[in-house]
Amino acid sequence: MEQTKIILDENEMPKQWYNVLSDFSSPIDPPLDPRTREPISPKALEPIFPKGLIKQEMSSERFIDIPEEILEIYRLWRPSPLYRAHRLEKLLKTPAKIYYKNEGVSPAGSHKTNTSIAQAYYNMKEGTERITTETGAGQWGSALALACNYFDLECKVYMVRSSFYQKPYRKSMMTVWGGNVVPSPSEDTEFGKKILKEQPETPGSLGIAISEAVEDAIAHDSTKYSLGSVLNHVMLHQTVIGAECKKQLEQVETYPDIVIGCCGGGSNLAGISLEFIKDKIEGKRNPRVIAVEPSACPSLTKGEYRYDFGDTAEMTPLLKMYTLGHKHVPPAIHAGGLRYHGDSPIISKLYAEGLIEAVAYDQYPVFDAAVQFARTEGIVPAPESSHAIRCAIDEALKCKQTGEEKTILFNLSGHGHFDMSSYDKYFNKELA
Amino acid sequence: MEQTKIILDENEMPKQWYNVLSDFSSPIDPPLDPRTREPISPKALEPIFPKGLIKQEMSSERFIDIPEEILEIYRLWRPSPLYRAHRLEKLLKTPAKIYYKNEGVSPAGSHKTNTSIAQAYYNMKEGTERITTETGAGQWGSALALACNYFDLECKVYMVRSSFYQKPYRKSMMTVWGGNVVPSPSEDTEFGKKILKEQPETPGSLGIAISEAVEDAIAHDSTKYSLGSVLNHVMLHQTVIGAECKKQLEQVETYPDIVIGCCGGGSNLAGISLEFIKDKIEGKRNPRVIAVEPSACPSLTKGEYRYDFGDTAEMTPLLKMYTLGHKHVPPAIHAGGLRYHGDSPIISKLYAEGLIEAVAYDQYPVFDAAVQFARTEGIVPAPESSHAIRCAIDEALKCKQTGEEKTILFNLSGHGHFDMSSYDKYFNKELA
Repeated sequence: MEQTKIILDENEMPKQWYNVLSDFSSPIDPPLDPRTREPISPKALEPIFPKGLIKQEMSSERFIDIPEEILEIYRLWRPSPLYRAHRLEKLLKTPAKIYYKNEGVSPAGSHKTNTSIAQAYYNMKEGTERITTETGAGQWGSALALACNYFDLECKVYMVRSSFYQKPYRKSMMTVWGGNVVPSPSEDTEFGKKILKEQPETPGSLGIAISEAVEDAIAHDSTKYSLGSVLNHVMLHQTVIGAECKKQLEQVETYPDIVIGCCGGGSNLAGISLEFIKDKIEGKRNPRVIAVEPSACPSLTKGEYRYDFGDTAEMTPLLKMYTLGHKHVPPAIHAGGLRYHGDSPIISKLYAEGLIEAVAYDQYPVFDAAVQFARTEGIVPAPESSHAIRCAIDEALKCKQTGEEKTILFNLSGHGHFDMSSYDKYFNKELA
Repeated sequence: MEQTKIILDENEMPKQWYNVLSDFSSPIDPPLDPRTREPISPKALEPIFPKGLIKQEMSSERFIDIPEEILEIYRLWRPSPLYRAHRLEKLLKTPAKIYYKNEGVSPAGSHKTNTSIAQAYYNMKEGTERITTETGAGQWGSALALACNYFDLECKVYMVRSSFYQKPYRKSMMTVWGGNVVPSPSEDTEFGKKILKEQPETPGSLGIAISEAVEDAIAHDSTKYSLGSVLNHVMLHQTVIGAECKKQLEQVETYPDIVIGCCGGGSNLAGISLEFIKDKIEGKRNPRVIAVEPSACPSLTKGEYRYDFGDTAEMTPLLKMYTLGHKHVPPAIHAGGLRYHGDSPIISKLYAEGLIEAVAYDQYPVFDAAVQFARTEGIVPAPESSHAIRCAIDEALKCKQTGEEKTILFNLSGHGHFDMSSYDKYFNKELA
């Protein structure tokens, strides 16, 4: 059998992030101040973000050096392996070549650590002592708890209440790394108290949890807020994924015809695709890039492209994005990381300009694909990542029809070890 | 910072297992027939094991080729990475160098896949259609479900009842790979029915589950039984771990002064240490090898070296081993993989002959070490593996006292993603 894993040595890890903002034909629409509806000044963001990240958010530099302190921590799991899915190809009887990048190898179990480490580092550099954030399924909260642990920062996580009780082991993991996790809405913020008074039985939502985390950061000294997706600097930090992929595919002398990522806020899709979109913009290559979302939360495929708030309480800046509306509460599907009403401004602009495509899937076909993948490649995938798997399988099946030997690359954004209850529900036909 | 991960390419994977039986100064005491108490004939083992494995169990060949079909599956995660624990060393302020082999990277999350794949393969070769086994914490059951999936074998797992209900997600994982899991004692065997009648509320035990799995294998056509530790062929299959370690340590021009593994049945300890014990036997090197067990189940440190049954119902052959007695039911500590009354005959003989040492730890110091490890190295370790971590830390702290720059190697046998409830109990001071 041919090579299964394509691995890079530590010293082959990318030393720079790629900033796609520098390559857009027109400038990206700026975030707006929620009070004035005018473009927000960097100064106005300082109560919630450190200057280093605000600078990256608005940077037009094409490549940004990754500080050595961040590379040192990345080395605990990066470069991540790229796999050729020989057994899945065989099962599908497809002439397509399927590759996947395995981001589940990070200690927190997903790609989210690529940005959590960077964000904690820039906060530490400027004297931040405490970081607040929200988490839904728990991948982002875990990643930030791990990162804060490395830079001696306190970490306060507002975890969507329904997940807090349904996924207790994600909370345990954050606690192992020293994180402080509370169910949201909580009694720790004014907004949380208000919601609890009005709706004592609410399951919570990502929008509510964001409002609480932002309020907490503004209300406390030496405390900043951290977001695991959507923002430009988060997309930037994830580009290490695609940069590694390129080197790995060069080793086997191939280049993807199709690049696939699941898409909630958009960070893992950006991570795997922006390096290839760079080639598209430069006119060097023309791979198809596909964003895969759940049909229960179809922000790209069914949303509107307009300014909207990132949170429920209307405290965050307004972002130009594909959105279902910031009051939208998606059904409780088992891919918590994809249950967000909007998309990253970068992903939204790429979609609006036709540089990427989007597709939406129902939960059952997604879990069918997850089980096919687990039974061939071994790895039990996260429900989020399984959206990308579904699309990769469908593209491979199209190749079977046409006989085309396309190269398909997708991002396996994380493992499903903390999502097994959703597999139980799938087998019992109880998925939402 | 110096190199963090030492990795090998797929083509550097060992192609042979090492059989320590060939190097013992006196022959190992043979298994005895439970009825006659005479050495058992290979023929008498055939109702439960395939001939290929019986041959390995009694082989005196020094090296045994690993079939290509097994290597192909190993390639999904092997060679596993060897880590230098820079951050743990720094925390401890020790001059010692600490290395650990990460066996948690297998899809099932532990070293157990090294033998499950091999056992399923030899069964498939001889026409077995169905394999039965027992599992406690679930690592072995998961590993065998994965392996049976690859060779199109049915897999029936008798899971110790208390774990079946306390660790539902291990069961879910086995189901994803197509395994059929029942709580033991079950209604599916005569022995299970008898126990259920006598003690309807029993939490079950590994000894009971083994009895059920063996009875099921004997009672059904084309069905064999599979054991995840203890037996000689299991130790054999695990030697890929140590063989990889040697190559990896050669890359950084070092050799361990101390080799550490946690020890229940003994397979992960054998895996990491037998290649180094070979050097001891040959007089080339003299590393200390340490088996680490829980003080709640101290089979080496407090057991007797004598013939005993492997199971509760006295259906298995008798093995010469350190044992607490086959009726012993260890307290419900959170390292299910170490809750076995006996040790592998190979490990037992090495201990009796002074080639390895043993030490026992209480649960709290073990979890203290687990949390120190998680906060420095990132990875959340399995409670079993954390016994090895505790010992490695203590040896490193001794080096701090003496100023010795020893090289310490331990086996991180698996991750703790399915053991988070034990971390909760540790933090709440509720450990058994």
